[in-house]
Amino acid sequence: MIGRTHYCGDISEQLIGEKVQLKGWAQTRRDLGQVIFVDLRDRTGVVQIVANPEISQEALDVMDTVRSEYVLDVKGTVVKRDEETYNEKIPTGTVEVQVDEMTILNESKPLPFQVDGETDVSEDVRLRYRYLDLRRPEMRDTFKLRHKTTKLIRDFLDENDFLDIETPMLTKSTPEGARDYLVPSRVHRGEFYALPQSPQLFKQLLMVSGFEKYFQIVRCFRDEDLRADRQPEFTQVDIEASFMEKEDFLSMMEDMMKKIMKEVHDIEVPTPFPRLTYEEAMNRYGSDKPDTRFGMELVELSDIVKDSDFKVFANAVKNGGIVKGLNVKGVADKMSRKEIDDLADFVAVYGAKGLAWLKVEEDSLKGPIAKFFTEEETAQLRKALDAEAGDLLFFGADKKQVVFDALGALRLKFGKELDLIDHSKFNFLWVTEFPLMEYDEDEDRYTAMHHPFTSPMREDISKLDSNPEDVRAEAYDLVLNGYELGGGSQRIYERDLQEKMFAALGFSEEEAREQFGFLLEAFEYGTPPHGGIALGLDRLIMILAGRSNLRDTIAFPKTASASCPLTGAPGEVSTSQLDELNLEVVQFEEEE
Amino acid sequence: MIGRTHYCGDISEQLIGEKVQLKGWAQTRRDLGQVIFVDLRDRTGVVQIVANPEISQEALDVMDTVRSEYVLDVKGTVVKRDEETYNEKIPTGTVEVQVDEMTILNESKPLPFQVDGETDVSEDVRLRYRYLDLRRPEMRDTFKLRHKTTKLIRDFLDENDFLDIETPMLTKSTPEGARDYLVPSRVHRGEFYALPQSPQLFKQLLMVSGFEKYFQIVRCFRDEDLRADRQPEFTQVDIEASFMEKEDFLSMMEDMMKKIMKEVHDIEVPTPFPRLTYEEAMNRYGSDKPDTRFGMELVELSDIVKDSDFKVFANAVKNGGIVKGLNVKGVADKMSRKEIDDLADFVAVYGAKGLAWLKVEEDSLKGPIAKFFTEEETAQLRKALDAEAGDLLFFGADKKQVVFDALGALRLKFGKELDLIDHSKFNFLWVTEFPLMEYDEDEDRYTAMHHPFTSPMREDISKLDSNPEDVRAEAYDLVLNGYELGGGSQRIYERDLQEKMFAALGFSEEEAREQFGFLLEAFEYGTPPHGGIALGLDRLIMILAGRSNLRDTIAFPKTASASCPLTGAPGEVSTSQLDELNLEVVQFEEEE
Repeated sequence: MIGRTHYCGDISEQLIGEKVQLKGWAQTRRDLGQVIFVDLRDRTGVVQIVANPEISQEALDVMDTVRSEYVLDVKGTVVKRDEETYNEKIPTGTVEVQVDEMTILNESKPLPFQVDGETDVSEDVRLRYRYLDLRRPEMRDTFKLRHKTTKLIRDFLDENDFLDIETPMLTKSTPEGARDYLVPSRVHRGEFYALPQSPQLFKQLLMVSGFEKYFQIVRCFRDEDLRADRQPEFTQVDIEASFMEKEDFLSMMEDMMKKIMKEVHDIEVPTPFPRLTYEEAMNRYGSDKPDTRFGMELVELSDIVKDSDFKVFANAVKNGGIVKGLNVKGVADKMSRKEIDDLADFVAVYGAKGLAWLKVEEDSLKGPIAKFFTEEETAQLRKALDAEAGDLLFFGADKKQVVFDALGALRLKFGKELDLIDHSKFNFLWVTEFPLMEYDEDEDRYTAMHHPFTSPMREDISKLDSNPEDVRAEAYDLVLNGYELGGGSQRIYERDLQEKMFAALGFSEEEAREQFGFLLEAFEYGTPPHGGIALGLDRLIMILAGRSNLRDTIAFPKTASASCPLTGAPGEVSTSQLDELNLEVVQFEEEE
Repeated sequence: MIGRTHYCGDISEQLIGEKVQLKGWAQTRRDLGQVIFVDLRDRTGVVQIVANPEISQEALDVMDTVRSEYVLDVKGTVVKRDEETYNEKIPTGTVEVQVDEMTILNESKPLPFQVDGETDVSEDVRLRYRYLDLRRPEMRDTFKLRHKTTKLIRDFLDENDFLDIETPMLTKSTPEGARDYLVPSRVHRGEFYALPQSPQLFKQLLMVSGFEKYFQIVRCFRDEDLRADRQPEFTQVDIEASFMEKEDFLSMMEDMMKKIMKEVHDIEVPTPFPRLTYEEAMNRYGSDKPDTRFGMELVELSDIVKDSDFKVFANAVKNGGIVKGLNVKGVADKMSRKEIDDLADFVAVYGAKGLAWLKVEEDSLKGPIAKFFTEEETAQLRKALDAEAGDLLFFGADKKQVVFDALGALRLKFGKELDLIDHSKFNFLWVTEFPLMEYDEDEDRYTAMHHPFTSPMREDISKLDSNPEDVRAEAYDLVLNGYELGGGSQRIYERDLQEKMFAALGFSEEEAREQFGFLLEAFEYGTPPHGGIALGLDRLIMILAGRSNLRDTIAFPKTASASCPLTGAPGEVSTSQLDELNLEVVQFEEEE
């Protein structure tokens, strides 16, 4: 390297006596009058440099003008520090560089916030000055981890004969799925491209092409209202393979995750990963992405209470619903009546009309509903819930989905608050046998639970017409620590079955042809059996980096209102730009 | 692998006697009554399979129903072929697989065109059935090469400590540069994102962040009228480094290209690459991306003809222009007068008002303008142009740029037509010292020749105010075989200089702040010296694959009218989609 012999992080006792040239940022500066110390930082780390008049008055004079975050070019000699000045916090802490010569490459104004560690400045300010926020070591480490993980994935898939093939960003809008981002066409006036929600159709077409094994790490877009763990643009590890049996595919994915965990965290993840059917996951955890790092499973109680005098329970079962319970161990005396009652509001979000509870004492259950249960019922409840004195029991009684959602959320809430989660664990698991379709009450039709190209399980195909809600999909979600890392499936590859699927989803033949005609046509020219998966890269990195905010894994993320405080995107454009697109912004009333 | 023991291309004499299971497509089928042969293809290659009643009548019966491009699952035994039936065209040609058992996984209609080699069907049909076009071996090989090259680039940059960091696709429109693709925002009604023309600003901000070495293989977008070698979306290898001296950076890029050439074509490219200044490239080749695989350089003649009686030449020089000549060796007797005259139309495209020429004979020059030159001028012209009997000399006399463009294009035309180009050569070179700005007559202002963030050469900074057109840029284009592979530069990293640059480009202070305020602000917080390059990946692959059409390097490309014949993108969208965006398509008259 011209103009640089070492990185700051490379300076060590091995180099004592050597002349080095470093470049980096002045992180902190201590001025002892005749001696000035600066912690010089580059992307590898920090080393202390020191100027004093015995070495070079000139360098000291320059050093005297240095302020925080100035960019420096430093020549000097590596020396050992006095033992009492060792800095244990940095790997280079036993040495320093005595400066012979120094140039200021650029200056810096005082920063709006500190960049040498965690900051408590608001996220808005961090995003506004993202280029400074990214100087913080946590952020630098996250992006190094992201680079490394991405590289591991690419190398792994390359070794497994997958070809990295790019698919278009300017593609066609389809009404199925989430809302598309549109891109007006200038050449075809009045027409629009759509940004892809995923390369699903293209990767299936690549299977028709005979590439057999495809992958891509690819940007995808969804114009949805944002949550903390959603971004309008996100990155997907997109994989598809022909002729691979599902078991081969899943075990390959497990090997990939195993390799990532080994290389990134030096953790040996046992394989094969546990599998839960969708039904079992819902029944035991109230979630199709269960966090299995702690227990506190949901317990089925319908049979016990179906004839009880507590009508809420009995009626729930009578009306086709279920009753389930959750035993929160040892908190009966730690929660006030008010705290317990407030939980009714918490589960109301999930549609639950109330939250029944009981405190467990040595030889009785206490609480407003205790009186409704016979001795036998009480004994059965205690047994089923493994209840011991001091436990607090919660109950959900409603339609299946409401009970799952409410108690599933309550379980997670207590898991976090009671600190039951072992954060050193990385619990991978597969959830399988998802329903192929779910009934959408708003649209009064079935919609695909994954997407309309997911194959039904072969043994359930006959039920497609008669009992569509009972058809299970040949689909598999990869779950890690309560997050859905990704979803995959074997795909439909026969035109007939695909048409049947579209019909079950309420498409007319004409609609199916108009929107997916090219896929249906492609299926007629020798389409191999195929399947694949899409993994959320941002989320994987978030979990690997131990962050809780997806934005911390994206260099320049959008806020919850899909804007960028740094660049000001989105913004107004000139009338001439709109004229060229034959577009006009319609007047609108500002909403309250 | 479950259900597959080998790929077709793996079958060899080593496997004779072994049971194998293959999956793939029936490429060709020959029916000899009691024996049926099929060439089975997968992505690795082709192997012959054979069914006959002695092995399995059942398999023969299935085989009898197989048609072209059916998808097959085949079990059988590898046997040696009779020597007289060896197929030298395929690597597996000395063996075949005797079929015991066979399943048809999917059928195929007859294909609209053959996929077992080059096709002469129109490109429209190829794009309409792109999934079939991609089955052709040339296409498969191109995408394997693309995968391999991309991997090589990523590995190389990783080894050189570069971090792969993703930048946004939904960003802010800037009026500088080409036309943006816009994306309407639903949340911020009436506002728009723009798709990036390049991640230029973001990669510079990552340098401000201290990542020091960044790369990304990234999709970029330009809504420009398309040419054969342009696509609305294209892929760029985007690289940026802080603190790296230009010489280090260029030599690293050379090492990367050297590695690619070695691994892809087993060619040793000599380094360092030759360098030409912009001025020299224009003077010698009439192009800033010269194809140096052949000579036929432009020759400067202004001094010789400046006082000649041929006023076209003399006046060109008098008016500040130049006269240059091109010697096309040995074609004087091979071109008709009409063919020569037609070349005037060819150069007219470049603004040339005519094309003077002379035929070289043993002791004279012949042609309409020969009479204007004195004996001494004639001798000087012969000498300067190295003219020998049979040569044909062409002349350009006009403003510099017109002469360069016209003769540069003529040189390339003859180079191709006379087959002077050695297609086994890969001539890399750097073109340096570009003008920083050029005068845009339409806009009546200077525009940046590369982009407004390119640093002027330090020794020319003083001319920024007085003689902006004389300021050279610290820029470098990488040229290969007459194509610009990419352009790079050292960047401006001081706020003052960047503001000066914007002013020279005619921006008011307010405009500069409005459009690039966040960059100017970032420059105040300790910005390191930095520079980088952007390489056109599609074009690189095109050259490496020996293709002449950029579309052949993109899986699902757009046509010249920016549409996709396969998916029908762009297309109409529903009124409700537009309503949500507060947009209306303005009525327009269809153009004639």
